[in-house]
Amino acid sequence: MAGNSFGTVFCLSTFGESHGQAMGGIVDGCPAGLEMDLDFIQSELDRRRPGQSKLVSQRKESDVVKFLSGITDGKTTGTPIGFIIPNEDSKSKDYDHLKDVYRPSHADYTYDAKYGRRDWRGGGRSSARETVSRVVAGAIAKLLLKKSGIRIQAFTSQVGAVKLSKLYSELSLSDAETNPVRCPDAETARLMIKHIEEVRKEGDSIGGVITCVIRGTPVGLGEPVFDKLHADLGKAMLSINAVKGFEYGSGFEGVSMKGSEHNDLFTLKKGKVSTLTNHSGGIQGGISNGEDIYFRVAFKPVATIMKKQKTLNASMKMVDLAGKGRHDPCVLPRAVPIVEAMAALVLADHVLRNRSYTR
Amino acid sequence: MAGNSFGTVFCLSTFGESHGQAMGGIVDGCPAGLEMDLDFIQSELDRRRPGQSKLVSQRKESDVVKFLSGITDGKTTGTPIGFIIPNEDSKSKDYDHLKDVYRPSHADYTYDAKYGRRDWRGGGRSSARETVSRVVAGAIAKLLLKKSGIRIQAFTSQVGAVKLSKLYSELSLSDAETNPVRCPDAETARLMIKHIEEVRKEGDSIGGVITCVIRGTPVGLGEPVFDKLHADLGKAMLSINAVKGFEYGSGFEGVSMKGSEHNDLFTLKKGKVSTLTNHSGGIQGGISNGEDIYFRVAFKPVATIMKKQKTLNASMKMVDLAGKGRHDPCVLPRAVPIVEAMAALVLADHVLRNRSYTR
Amino acid sequence: MAGNSFGTVFCLSTFGESHGQAMGGIVDGCPAGLEMDLDFIQSELDRRRPGQSKLVSQRKESDVVKFLSGITDGKTTGTPIGFIIPNEDSKSKDYDHLKDVYRPSHADYTYDAKYGRRDWRGGGRSSARETVSRVVAGAIAKLLLKKSGIRIQAFTSQVGAVKLSKLYSELSLSDAETNPVRCPDAETARLMIKHIEEVRKEGDSIGGVITCVIRGTPVGLGEPVFDKLHADLGKAMLSINAVKGFEYGSGFEGVSMKGSEHNDLFTLKKGKVSTLTNHSGGIQGGISNGEDIYFRVAFKPVATIMKKQKTLNASMKMVDLAGKGRHDPCVLPRAVPIVEAMAALVLADHVLRNRSYTR
Amino acid sequence: MAGNSFGTVFCLSTFGESHGQAMGGIVDGCPAGLEMDLDFIQSELDRRRPGQSKLVSQRKESDVVKFLSGITDGKTTGTPIGFIIPNEDSKSKDYDHLKDVYRPSHADYTYDAKYGRRDWRGGGRSSARETVSRVVAGAIAKLLLKKSGIRIQAFTSQVGAVKLSKLYSELSLSDAETNPVRCPDAETARLMIKHIEEVRKEGDSIGGVITCVIRGTPVGLGEPVFDKLHADLGKAMLSINAVKGFEYGSGFEGVSMKGSEHNDLFTLKKGKVSTLTNHSGGIQGGISNGEDIYFRVAFKPVATIMKKQKTLNASMKMVDLAGKGRHDPCVLPRAVPIVEAMAALVLADHVLRNRSYTR
Repeated sequence: MAGNSFGTVFCLSTFGESHGQAMGGIVDGCPAGLEMDLDFIQSELDRRRPGQSKLVSQRKESDVVKFLSGITDGKTTGTPIGFIIPNEDSKSKDYDHLKDVYRPSHADYTYDAKYGRRDWRGGGRSSARETVSRVVAGAIAKLLLKKSGIRIQAFTSQVGAVKLSKLYSELSLSDAETNPVRCPDAETARLMIKHIEEVRKEGDSIGGVITCVIRGTPVGLGEPVFDKLHADLGKAMLSINAVKGFEYGSGFEGVSMKGSEHNDLFTLKKGKVSTLTNHSGGIQGGISNGEDIYFRVAFKPVATIMKKQKTLNASMKMVDLAGKGRHDPCVLPRAVPIVEAMAALVLADHVLRNRSYTR
Repeated sequence: MAGNSFGTVFCLSTFGESHGQAMGGIVDGCPAGLEMDLDFIQSELDRRRPGQSKLVSQRKESDVVKFLSGITDGKTTGTPIGFIIPNEDSKSKDYDHLKDVYRPSHADYTYDAKYGRRDWRGGGRSSARETVSRVVAGAIAKLLLKKSGIRIQAFTSQVGAVKLSKLYSELSLSDAETNPVRCPDAETARLMIKHIEEVRKEGDSIGGVITCVIRGTPVGLGEPVFDKLHADLGKAMLSINAVKGFEYGSGFEGVSMKGSEHNDLFTLKKGKVSTLTNHSGGIQGGISNGEDIYFRVAFKPVATIMKKQKTLNASMKMVDLAGKGRHDPCVLPRAVPIVEAMAALVLADHVLRNRSYTR
Repeated sequence: MAGNSFGTVFCLSTFGESHGQAMGGIVDGCPAGLEMDLDFIQSELDRRRPGQSKLVSQRKESDVVKFLSGITDGKTTGTPIGFIIPNEDSKSKDYDHLKDVYRPSHADYTYDAKYGRRDWRGGGRSSARETVSRVVAGAIAKLLLKKSGIRIQAFTSQVGAVKLSKLYSELSLSDAETNPVRCPDAETARLMIKHIEEVRKEGDSIGGVITCVIRGTPVGLGEPVFDKLHADLGKAMLSINAVKGFEYGSGFEGVSMKGSEHNDLFTLKKGKVSTLTNHSGGIQGGISNGEDIYFRVAFKPVATIMKKQKTLNASMKMVDLAGKGRHDPCVLPRAVPIVEAMAALVLADHVLRNRSYTR
Repeated sequence: MAGNSFGTVFCLSTFGESHGQAMGGIVDGCPAGLEMDLDFIQSELDRRRPGQSKLVSQRKESDVVKFLSGITDGKTTGTPIGFIIPNEDSKSKDYDHLKDVYRPSHADYTYDAKYGRRDWRGGGRSSARETVSRVVAGAIAKLLLKKSGIRIQAFTSQVGAVKLSKLYSELSLSDAETNPVRCPDAETARLMIKHIEEVRKEGDSIGGVITCVIRGTPVGLGEPVFDKLHADLGKAMLSINAVKGFEYGSGFEGVSMKGSEHNDLFTLKKGKVSTLTNHSGGIQGGISNGEDIYFRVAFKPVATIMKKQKTLNASMKMVDLAGKGRHDPCVLPRAVPIVEAMAALVLADHVLRNRSYTR
């Protein structure tokens, strides 16, 4: 109830502050006998890691996950999987100037107001470093989903005003991994990278949109009326730092359509129920219908910038603040694996939940 | 876990099919001693009721709530509040033609696929009639929030392509209740109404956007890292039928801004911490900061239209389908109280959750 | 979290005060397609009903359950099953003298202290009448368990000092239903009945023990380390009014045994793993092992007696109190179906929970 | 839902196998600002540690807890407290002979049947070593309870047939810590120790009873109708390895009493509501009434004995088995702090839960 657990059957609980001893978590509810592909899990962590390119933070975190329980002979035992990712390159000194300062649009002030105290080093619990545990658990979820043929692929579809104009179906989504901004269209990627570099030089930051596509979902996942599949996906995405919006299928654009245009007419493809269009985004009435699930996630520009800003300190005085440390001018490239991880957690949970109700 | 409960401390569980005996629910966790203003609760139901104007469904549902427990001498006792709303005007005959037919972009097919059977009359459990229980519980939540000074007001800000251009802060939001489309700007309301009537005449439907503003929230509500206040609000909204998107604060537009523009600089207002702008939408790091919370909810055009459509039946044959019955050409006007109700449930839950952690 | 829900997958939420409008509840998570044998459900309610014999309260409650949702064509739809049992014979006048009085060993004082108010009529929420909803849900659970071959039978094994001396395996447990005290041994039943009648004449009350046997449980139910099968059974039983103790298998007697005596040695019965003895009570490490599960539940003498007692009123004055109304001198006979119902809820929940983890 | 979390607001999740990398857990929901007395926490672990005396296992586990998050400047921050206790003296070789063998009355067989595999070394997840995480979390809970004046003291009240005959109120409970069997009466302690040593020499094991007393509980803790305070205490105790029974207040003995004897008559002590007797065990209607809470917990003799036994292996063959390794002939002395820890978790949770409902 304190907000650090996610999922009902496939459940992740996390702990850890940015500059504490370690980040970590427990995955409870993962079925026994799942082959743990440790290389794959580590590769997912590497996709999230800072220092991958000039576009992102230059912090050096090796981010090696260490599993403490729940696995024997390379397979899960059905007992909780405990893991830690030690915090290594914690240059807490970079944050000394922030001890008593509330950074604009950060969580410094609200944490202090809520809890009466906070670990101010590197943002403490509110740091995006917290997502490292999500990526570990998401990778395990992906291994589970793979067995059901469910595949998740996210990519950067907008940076600032630079938008990918093609439909996801026109692109080879795995190409997203061929460039540092993780956009599957080479030309758009080039423009995005250029834009991020400009912003970085200004000491500023920029937002963007990540699109995620889930293929191979069986019909029947989602638990209405409250735990609709897209409602749980939405919550998952909105729980990621810096996310300001979520839409699936036709989303905000669909509001201007008429019912006769928007309705997805049924058809039979090889004897299987299918739809001619997919404005529904693969979910009807909160339950997956077997079509592609796709959604878009809006990220604001990161709050930490190198430019000087006026702000408040804990003594209620206005002070000057200039960013130090090694921050991301644009969070999008590193957020792609995080979006996928959270999507995987939701899908894995719903696959397992759905089993209970099968006669 | 089966998806029909919402909230952790202030918790609503619902039941009921559109044409069954009754809709209803249980509110568990409401503190004792809360004055139950039954007139207010009924007035909230009346705002949601069909038949209020030509813009919405002409079904005649009196929708009178009957409380069965949890109240003595007009006040809550701290025990669960059970309630029912009997189903009265159930013209199930209007739905006979739908028994074996899967309506496009409805939940008919997915329910059948998931559960192996469904109550097809009036959409059964997937009917928007299900929200009547949410409005009852939301009204109780509003009574609780009132004591903390928290006020929630939603309104229609877009119908099809007709958009409200003014900021919410420039309007008197209570004016929304003075016209049938529930838009606080008279001129925009007129255009929206005209648009809906055109669409209705065509036998079609249209979507739109509802904006919701929450004032008076204390600093400190929200439970990161997963149960961030906006993440729970997002899930609440996405759990409402026909919702396709959610954004708060700067939302999708904010992605094109730079950090230096987007950051909300702190200031002191009468010695209280405040911000000069509010792109954060009243929430930072998942915790309320005392500023106005505002968010936008995208509704697709309702799937039921009077126009003829081709669709599939349960025998996998293509058949003609034309809407019968009494449906809404635009769901927005009646969805305003539903959005408020779900927002109230989230806020009430977080007010009570937050109490546990206070030293 | 407010304590009125039980179970995780197969989940019962209840509401209702003894003399309010109705008792009722919601069963959420029952799989779709389960045949609802309404006669059976009603017959379970009849077993719990007062007025069955001279041994129990003479209140006349017809206790007819009315289902409001979740069922079509006699089968469950997978959506929540809402139900009510109207309160009929509420002679609230019988309780007028209790409005401001705290009955000894009742919940009057603690409810008042916790909630600041209470529905004092007939004990309000703390009345054993609350268990009527448990019996309805338990009957549904039994229907579900029947399909898995799981059978639950409870019986009265002790009333005051009168103990059943035979082992459960020496008796035909269904014989319990042939006498009003629900003891499967005719001679012991006769002594128990005699004892209860003496106590009743004295205007007093008496406690006892109910034993419950569960047969046909598959190997593998229970979720260690906290939700061990017997831990959930124990909680279920202890949540019933007047229960003071729970033991399973060898229980409190087993503490005097040595390991070499207590250990259940394995054997093969028709190629199936079995044990020569069953001190484990069918559960090892919190997980069912396929042997009979059996446990004992201690009930204190009911607090309401006809004898005069001194007690406190809400104004902190000592007053005389003599029971009025129609109370049970011994709760055991009517508690048998309640014990079974709670056991059924636990088993049904664990059957469904276990499905999630199966590969 | 997978059974490795306990508590709703003050919530412990645990992981770890006996001979894996580490045991550990997360405490989520602990209020911010609680002073962490690390020496006290370690001293609680030391009370549980093997090797304290000849009465218990001679394994050498230093059992040092390492906190990874949730604490700054010696106080909790309100964020999750992650911790590990590394596994050091894991003589897995001692267990090699158990790889394919199902020990009688152990969880080997049921784990294998449920999960299809298990970590067999030292009992894996089913080992009592798992309770080390409970003791850490329980110690934190005790620190929280101390601020509310709630004190918990458990002691050994029976070993085999050797029973403590005095009432707890006649003893100084802290004397329990002055002898290795943790019985507060010196003479009874002597007899218990003698009995355990005899049993140990025989290569056998013996059970017993632990009594726990909770003083200083405020009126009002407990959430009926399902989460009654004693129901949650019962579940907590039954979740401990080797526990077979739980009773509170008059318990199983109370069943032979009449209502007129059993009822606890009210009285006023210094203007405060109190009772003349306390058969209720400090809880009425599931809610604490301010009197002492006391309960008894039955432990079976530990299943691992040095004597030779016949048993089954995974190939369904009968084989000879003799205990190796370093086991406890009697689990009681080391279980005392575990009982206290689980009681503390329940009380801390209910203290925090109760806050939500206060107006």
